[in-house]
Amino acid sequence: MRIERVEFFYLSMPVIENVGDGSQDAVLVRVEAGGQTGWGECEAAPLPTIAALVCPPSHSACRPVQESVVGAKLESPSDIANIHAAVRRNSLDLLQADHALSGIDMALWDLLGRARGEPVYKLLGDKRAYPKLPYASVLFGETPQETLAKAQGIRKEKYRAAKFGWGPFGKSTAQFDRDQIHAAREGLGSDGILLVDAGTVWEDNVERAAQVLEALNVVNATWLEEPFVSGALSAYKKLSALSGRVKLAGGEGCHNFHMAAQMIDYAGLGYVQIDAGRIGGISAARQAAEYARERGVTYVNHTFTSHLALSASLQAYAGFERDEICEYPVESKPLAQELTAGRIERRADGTISVPDSPGLGLVPDLKALQKYLVDVEIKVHGKTLYKTPPLKA
Amino acid sequence: MRIERVEFFYLSMPVIENVGDGSQDAVLVRVEAGGQTGWGECEAAPLPTIAALVCPPSHSACRPVQESVVGAKLESPSDIANIHAAVRRNSLDLLQADHALSGIDMALWDLLGRARGEPVYKLLGDKRAYPKLPYASVLFGETPQETLAKAQGIRKEKYRAAKFGWGPFGKSTAQFDRDQIHAAREGLGSDGILLVDAGTVWEDNVERAAQVLEALNVVNATWLEEPFVSGALSAYKKLSALSGRVKLAGGEGCHNFHMAAQMIDYAGLGYVQIDAGRIGGISAARQAAEYARERGVTYVNHTFTSHLALSASLQAYAGFERDEICEYPVESKPLAQELTAGRIERRADGTISVPDSPGLGLVPDLKALQKYLVDVEIKVHGKTLYKTPPLKA
Repeated sequence: MRIERVEFFYLSMPVIENVGDGSQDAVLVRVEAGGQTGWGECEAAPLPTIAALVCPPSHSACRPVQESVVGAKLESPSDIANIHAAVRRNSLDLLQADHALSGIDMALWDLLGRARGEPVYKLLGDKRAYPKLPYASVLFGETPQETLAKAQGIRKEKYRAAKFGWGPFGKSTAQFDRDQIHAAREGLGSDGILLVDAGTVWEDNVERAAQVLEALNVVNATWLEEPFVSGALSAYKKLSALSGRVKLAGGEGCHNFHMAAQMIDYAGLGYVQIDAGRIGGISAARQAAEYARERGVTYVNHTFTSHLALSASLQAYAGFERDEICEYPVESKPLAQELTAGRIERRADGTISVPDSPGLGLVPDLKALQKYLVDVEIKVHGKTLYKTPPLKA
Repeated sequence: MRIERVEFFYLSMPVIENVGDGSQDAVLVRVEAGGQTGWGECEAAPLPTIAALVCPPSHSACRPVQESVVGAKLESPSDIANIHAAVRRNSLDLLQADHALSGIDMALWDLLGRARGEPVYKLLGDKRAYPKLPYASVLFGETPQETLAKAQGIRKEKYRAAKFGWGPFGKSTAQFDRDQIHAAREGLGSDGILLVDAGTVWEDNVERAAQVLEALNVVNATWLEEPFVSGALSAYKKLSALSGRVKLAGGEGCHNFHMAAQMIDYAGLGYVQIDAGRIGGISAARQAAEYARERGVTYVNHTFTSHLALSASLQAYAGFERDEICEYPVESKPLAQELTAGRIERRADGTISVPDSPGLGLVPDLKALQKYLVDVEIKVHGKTLYKTPPLKA
């Protein structure tokens, strides 16, 4: 079969709050080939991502993403690899193309899985999907008191692991950060796995980041995530030498495999966190997971949005028994919650698994999503390059 | 003064050819503050870059670029640093933002230089601008015979250095590549500096790249540029160990300072090539130039478009006497040639210098550019977020 159509849908909450919550909008991707449909999701700014799909070409290495996808053959995993390589090559200088490719790549795997009646992880060569231990991923409270209450709530929901991040963390005094860290541990109880996410707030300032290390060690936190921006390799490396039992985590900003490899090779990470919606989809996430495994770095998904994105993120390392922990969004906005009718629910023992059904195993709830669909129109030289397509089956 | 307005203009040749010539379109940037105007240029896909400027926000770290710029104070270089940092922070997850920032950053330096009556390199702290030795930057011919003729033409034009790149190079046999390399040297003569640009064609395939090393050494080439994509650090490092007298060059794909630092630290480069129109403007280019100097790696601009972009690229290292070589576009399309009325011309000894006048020292030729202006309209929820502004003084 050949790819007949690639469509991007901009979905958004009616109001976007100025907080670190990436579940407030979405780029949903639909690919059609041979009577089959595949779905994916870019973790990306919707308007520039749509523009990357449909823009006029600039030169031979700066071409619209759709050009490398529509009409391409799709019958096997190697066809997906060819499409992936074509986008990277033909859109090399179109920065936003990596984010656009991410949702398309997911949809290609979903479509192929449906056509073959197999879950994506099996197409990737894994015989079985191991259970993952989800951590509840939430924002820090505005005060340590709020964080305490959030942590208590998470404990009540019987999560065995929780991550607190963003919000006011890292933006005022180190003492405030330490209070936040202690509040999170107090609320979670001594047995819960505690993870802390600085959300790149210190950019590459090792000295400032080091001021929270003792508190993290005292409360027995498992990791400190993104003290610095992705790619600030020497800052990561320096901090990792000081971090004691607490390991560093990072990598969500990687938008291709090579960036993930650098983080694994040079940043002194204990955990590499990959967002399949940014790195180039399941193909690039899988490549990063294999690279991490060979080098003894634990692979973790980065997912703060829908369960469609969650399934895609999990497929890449579902078959890796030792990479057990996974991110699990619990505070997401109604848009992200309603994006799929089905969900990846926790079992009684607190673990989750990818759906054991074809493709990604979840489909968008088109009826529920109508109210979130954003009407976009892009005209160049008077010609309409993009108009929001109808979101119908 | 405060920034009153930031405008992006999409300029394009009437027909875009599917060749590796990045001078076929442009994103021209105008910034206005306190009665002054500054100009810059993004080396980027125009439509996604415009979308990055004006898109609706997604969350606190994925906001439109203009939000961090319009209204900001602009009275000193530290104000530019603040604006730069705000864009990086507030648009962290908007991938295309780095390319959008690049042209804005140039325009901020241009504007500040004009307001103070000083060239940008002086605002950067350099007392004088040293002459640079430009290399003629051209595409390989389709055949070795064509390349020979091109090289002979360059020699006739009295360039002391030339770079051949892209086109068919690296896409068929290693023998074809070797023939191309020998043809370039033959046409250029034995005394010219010969540079070869593989345009990332081997992605990260060290074995294939190694097949041209002997020929490069035999013809006494100075560098092999971009055998691999930016960020494929271990592939670069491995090849650098095999490359003999020929040094590796790369880095044009870097879209922030940290990526340039990685290439300098881990890729085994002899030359780091930075495009101010991609890395985040003059501010980030300068940071990379200083980092390279401290580590004994030669800094070179990457510029394949207009003389406005050329001036901006040169300002970052104009004061660095030892980084002598510079890229100089010679085959650019009429759009790029007409973009400025003034030009940076070669002197009788073959060298060039940045203009010794305020700001970037060159201004767009608005009259000539009218015919290249592309009409763009972007509507979201029925509201016009972008409509090509008039390109008038």
